[in-house]
Amino acid sequence: MNAEIIAIGSEMLSGERVDTNSLYLTRELNKLGVEVVTKCVIGDDRDRLSAQVRQSMGRSAILILSGGLGPTEDDVTRDAVAQALDRKLIFDTGIADWLAQRFAAAKRKMAEVNKRQAYVIQGADVLSNDRGTAPGQWLEESGAVAILLPGPPHELKSMFERHCLPRLARIVPKQAIRTLFLRVAGMGESDLDQLIAPVYKKYENPVTTILAAAGDIQIHLRARCSTEAEAEALLAEVGGPVELLLGDRIYSRNGDPLEVVVGELLRAMHATVSVAESATGGMLGERFTSVPGSSEYFTGGFITYNNAMKMELLGVSPETLAEHGAVSKETAEAMALGARRRTNSTYALSITGAAGPESGDEKVPKGTMYVGVADAAGTTSLRRQFLGDRQRVRTFAVQMALDLLRRRITGRP
Amino acid sequence: MNAEIIAIGSEMLSGERVDTNSLYLTRELNKLGVEVVTKCVIGDDRDRLSAQVRQSMGRSAILILSGGLGPTEDDVTRDAVAQALDRKLIFDTGIADWLAQRFAAAKRKMAEVNKRQAYVIQGADVLSNDRGTAPGQWLEESGAVAILLPGPPHELKSMFERHCLPRLARIVPKQAIRTLFLRVAGMGESDLDQLIAPVYKKYENPVTTILAAAGDIQIHLRARCSTEAEAEALLAEVGGPVELLLGDRIYSRNGDPLEVVVGELLRAMHATVSVAESATGGMLGERFTSVPGSSEYFTGGFITYNNAMKMELLGVSPETLAEHGAVSKETAEAMALGARRRTNSTYALSITGAAGPESGDEKVPKGTMYVGVADAAGTTSLRRQFLGDRQRVRTFAVQMALDLLRRRITGRP
Repeated sequence: MNAEIIAIGSEMLSGERVDTNSLYLTRELNKLGVEVVTKCVIGDDRDRLSAQVRQSMGRSAILILSGGLGPTEDDVTRDAVAQALDRKLIFDTGIADWLAQRFAAAKRKMAEVNKRQAYVIQGADVLSNDRGTAPGQWLEESGAVAILLPGPPHELKSMFERHCLPRLARIVPKQAIRTLFLRVAGMGESDLDQLIAPVYKKYENPVTTILAAAGDIQIHLRARCSTEAEAEALLAEVGGPVELLLGDRIYSRNGDPLEVVVGELLRAMHATVSVAESATGGMLGERFTSVPGSSEYFTGGFITYNNAMKMELLGVSPETLAEHGAVSKETAEAMALGARRRTNSTYALSITGAAGPESGDEKVPKGTMYVGVADAAGTTSLRRQFLGDRQRVRTFAVQMALDLLRRRITGRP
Repeated sequence: MNAEIIAIGSEMLSGERVDTNSLYLTRELNKLGVEVVTKCVIGDDRDRLSAQVRQSMGRSAILILSGGLGPTEDDVTRDAVAQALDRKLIFDTGIADWLAQRFAAAKRKMAEVNKRQAYVIQGADVLSNDRGTAPGQWLEESGAVAILLPGPPHELKSMFERHCLPRLARIVPKQAIRTLFLRVAGMGESDLDQLIAPVYKKYENPVTTILAAAGDIQIHLRARCSTEAEAEALLAEVGGPVELLLGDRIYSRNGDPLEVVVGELLRAMHATVSVAESATGGMLGERFTSVPGSSEYFTGGFITYNNAMKMELLGVSPETLAEHGAVSKETAEAMALGARRRTNSTYALSITGAAGPESGDEKVPKGTMYVGVADAAGTTSLRRQFLGDRQRVRTFAVQMALDLLRRRITGRP
């Protein structure tokens, strides 16, 4: 079963803004087993919208429209859909009364234009709005469904969940859908794909989606079958080998990001961590402390952006810096050691590198990052060279540091 | 003059990805004075795309298509546009030779499928691709233009700039467009709008766009006239009063973010800065060091996430913490003072606060942030309470700290 989505509003046709409601709607439709085949953004233009509605309803079983249900002249969705289907708009006194009550309760005067929101397309069911003043509408025509939803995301989501998901579930052919969601660190996208493609490429079902960010890959497998047992068996058949191939590079099976996973490990062990950052300038600390409650295990850290700071704040020796340079295994390890000693934390992580665009030389090319970890058992470090701009290289290094700690805590090489 | 944009590719119909080429194209078209009235994402389906092309070319002067020009069966754009306009596809030996040379130069064997990329729609001009293997196409039909561009953003941008902008400039009615771009800190969106709306609301031209992020508002004014002098005069007429009303809350007129503006002030004064961060955990340091070359003025910092670290690393006294609490004016100022003393920097900034969701109490409600600054002249601080989730509150505080330093350096209250 196919769906189309139309977002209405000239403000989404600028060079700065995108329609995000369609992402939420797509995820929900996919979960039901419905594929989105076209999506559009149309300005506040009745004729253009009307033509698009006619075209979409002629070829797809479900059409969802978001926005354009407000009280002003710019809000053309009701009119355009009525025109597309050649139906009348009918004044609904029930909605008008409800609107009047809402305004009275808020001790505000209802402007005359608000009555526009009480018009319903002939034959449509009204969908109540518990977050705003624009009611939605649900209507059917020659076997296709059109759903009119308000544009503000929190209004749209609430209405879609309360009214539309249950009704759609009755229309959509019964399917059982099971999803496997893995997050992987410490691997490039192409290496990962080369490793697991031989497994998942053989299957159109489950559908495999791979999303790669710097040092962080998400893998979604979505199996659709007629029974739950079949979907689970299918997911096991494909997901099992994928999990086996990736092994301990999988850090999360519930969507949690790496800083949450590492934080939970630290909390479970009643351990603490501190950081010493050069090239990343605080980004690793920022990641740790983005998690509410991280004060339980994150003690603090040092941003040592130049050599003087590395010596003064962390006790890195002038000889280490002179002999090996600021971007070196020795400096990374001395930084971790210094941070651990000065904060008394169980673990300390360090990052030093040449993030670019101007840093870097022959010995230490641009993109080279060292990550160090220190604990009671000793100190170790890793070196990697990353491609990309400054922010991307720094994000890679932070992910690498978090993953190094995850492996250290769980005793993986 | 109106334009429509169609992005082709099933991968942009998932719940995670959006088409971003259309944002770039919209900005460029707007600069020419062309408005985008509809944009669509269509999967790899020839008939659906063909119908959309016919509809769009029937009502808009410019249609830009991105993607679907690759060599595989999934790449349907050439076929769909030919079908929509009832034209033939013609094998272009020039393109075929160029493709063969490209592969030979890279010492790769050209697969037979790549020859698909040598087909040109009857009557179309070929647009060369200097970044990839898919040539673009430019064709006209009954006064409307269709432009086929490759999907990868760097290929699309290069081709659009080199081939399309000059040609479009010849087609589009001559207009002079002038833009004023302001960035503002230290004001909420609604306060700002209340202040300047009485000025800009009177004008449909220039078009005013306001984009708000946490603690950072961008204002664009775009004037379109038949001559440059008119456009400049109009922009001065509206932009002048807007600038006057906002005064020194405007920190940038060229798009530079606040960390770049502050960095340039520091560099110009041969001054340095250090940071002491509690609630933001490194986010302020990360912002400073996101700028290439920031090592010239950013010395380093301290992430003191608990009281012990505030005492040990920054020398905040136990009495200050006991008497006033970690989230207080006194602690913020002691942190800044400590950071300055221990790093010998010209300026030091500090941040302490209750970012939520669980922190905060009656005396210090959730969202309360203190920002301190220390220099040779003394120490001062500001308190604000921000609304929003943890990340938003932290971003507000970082912006507030950067703006406090900007004002301190430039001697503004």
